[in-house]
Amino acid sequence: MSDSYSPGLHLLGQLHTDQTELLRTAAGFRAVIDAAIAEAELTSVGEVYHDFPGGGFTAVICLTESHLSIHTWPEYGRATLDVFLSNFRQVNDHKAQLLFERCRAYFQATTHHYHELKR
Amino acid sequence: MSDSYSPGLHLLGQLHTDQTELLRTAAGFRAVIDAAIAEAELTSVGEVYHDFPGGGFTAVICLTESHLSIHTWPEYGRATLDVFLSNFRQVNDHKAQLLFERCRAYFQATTHHYHELKR
Repeated sequence: MSDSYSPGLHLLGQLHTDQTELLRTAAGFRAVIDAAIAEAELTSVGEVYHDFPGGGFTAVICLTESHLSIHTWPEYGRATLDVFLSNFRQVNDHKAQLLFERCRAYFQATTHHYHELKR
Repeated sequence: MSDSYSPGLHLLGQLHTDQTELLRTAAGFRAVIDAAIAEAELTSVGEVYHDFPGGGFTAVICLTESHLSIHTWPEYGRATLDVFLSNFRQVNDHKAQLLFERCRAYFQATTHHYHELKR
């Protein structure tokens, strides 16, 4: 194990919003997160988007050795959001914050049960 | 917001192993996690597997409103593992533990920086 390993930053939160329509399908979110990934100059290596028949969606975007995930519950006005960015080649902490904030803003949400983990 | 919302369990850990060959490509891991998902009677709704040219891989398996993710660093003998299972229809905490343990055992790893978050 090398001493040069630099942990990444994992942001975890629960978003609460009255805009429950935004939680029902992934299309709008997808446009926002694609723009945020481009803004942060990050690279997607694959993604999964799944809309549930009754409303709500799950999405995971794999970034280079990192990921962003969201699971929505429109019936509760909630989503669980994770942004984990490694620091493999550079410190990406500010980019993790940017992605989290772009998601929060899109849903016009307040953030609850928020954790920041160095890992 | 309904009072009936039941938070899920998110397990986060860093695996350390001397079996660095297992961290280089995803194929062996994929077989193990597919078996564990079947054992736990969970449902995948999509997945991403990405092997890096220099060794190491990233994988995310989306389960129903939940996910499992892993990012490996063979050069450091490490992987970061997340298992997040919601309790949408039933309490799945024991299934989260099972998936985490199957991964740890496959890599013959010790677990560090371990967190359990109710969310």
